[in-house]
Amino acid sequence: MNGRLIVFEGVEGSGKTTQLKRSYQWLLESGWCERLQARDVLRRLIITREPGGTEVGREIRQLLLTPPPQEPLWDQAELLLYAADRAQHIQQMLKPELTAGSLILCDRYTDSTIAYQGYGRGLSLELIDQLNQIATDGLQSDLTLWLDVDAAEGLTRTRNRGEGDRLEKADLSFHQRVQQGFNALAISFPERIIRIDASFSEIEVTQQIQEILTEKLTQWYES
Amino acid sequence: MNGRLIVFEGVEGSGKTTQLKRSYQWLLESGWCERLQARDVLRRLIITREPGGTEVGREIRQLLLTPPPQEPLWDQAELLLYAADRAQHIQQMLKPELTAGSLILCDRYTDSTIAYQGYGRGLSLELIDQLNQIATDGLQSDLTLWLDVDAAEGLTRTRNRGEGDRLEKADLSFHQRVQQGFNALAISFPERIIRIDASFSEIEVTQQIQEILTEKLTQWYES
Repeated sequence: MNGRLIVFEGVEGSGKTTQLKRSYQWLLESGWCERLQARDVLRRLIITREPGGTEVGREIRQLLLTPPPQEPLWDQAELLLYAADRAQHIQQMLKPELTAGSLILCDRYTDSTIAYQGYGRGLSLELIDQLNQIATDGLQSDLTLWLDVDAAEGLTRTRNRGEGDRLEKADLSFHQRVQQGFNALAISFPERIIRIDASFSEIEVTQQIQEILTEKLTQWYES
Repeated sequence: MNGRLIVFEGVEGSGKTTQLKRSYQWLLESGWCERLQARDVLRRLIITREPGGTEVGREIRQLLLTPPPQEPLWDQAELLLYAADRAQHIQQMLKPELTAGSLILCDRYTDSTIAYQGYGRGLSLELIDQLNQIATDGLQSDLTLWLDVDAAEGLTRTRNRGEGDRLEKADLSFHQRVQQGFNALAISFPERIIRIDASFSEIEVTQQIQEILTEKLTQWYES
């Protein structure tokens, strides 16, 4: 059995978390999972996220999203906390599940670090690449769905939800740089990253994603 | 003004924390601080530690020493958490204080990571070196006092104190490898690391350290 890792990426308000949950439900309800499990090519369907996919990761996520108010969380420390969360996630969950033959849907992965800490905060892309290597031990996604929405539109959606953690409070130009980062990644890694036009309605985006998933699952498991 | 960073290193039970506090008191009470401050070559005398020298670091320290009981803290994640604590410590405290001209006494620094995570846990020394570079932004200690005590003797002292966090519960062979790591570092970096024979009584060790500090302070500030 060969497990597969599917990552959902995008700026805040791109709808990636909603779409990830919809994909999970659809894989269960459409019969895909049942069919692949019956053929013994799929172990489990798993939904997870970074940061916060493990017990240790949930404590790191808490620290990242609500750091102590008395001092700033410095960019380098933030970057290393994301890497620590990732290393724990990979060793504790992703690697064993992939080895067991699970299909994993993950909310954010290495590309978020490049887009947010690299393009957004301006940290060295080479340094981030080194850290991603250390944290992932070389594990890449099999498919990354990038939900591409205009940064301003994404922020408006987020604010309309009444949400606002530390990242979401960052300014528009930061989110625009992050968006440029995702765009640059999609151009550099077309074999792995598929752009989804997330300016459409939720239902239309869901439709686009289901078509891509159908094609990929067929390619991976039925060809 | 040129700040200086003095680091105290050693295995558990080596007495480094006790000796660091004694050095702090002695620098205040012997008149050294007052004299250097009067000459305007010293800003402040500061005592700090890794992990846990900052507010963010105290949360990371908590996670390192008492991780959630439901899952193991993986070696790579542990290494990256130490690096995150270090990056925050350097940006938030060490760099600004050194720039301002402070004398800093720090309980553990980069050599502990090499000794514990590299020699102790067997993680790649090259990888640790990369991470130390990322976390420290190149900042090295001006002087590292390595309190050298036999690993078994150190563990016995620790247990007699009734202490026992996660690290101190590790087995003797782990502590022996850590000890070998400190030894290898002292041989590789004789210009920075001074070995203190910590098998002597507390008072004798204090005496050794005061002699070295007197020599170094004279060299740094009065020559």
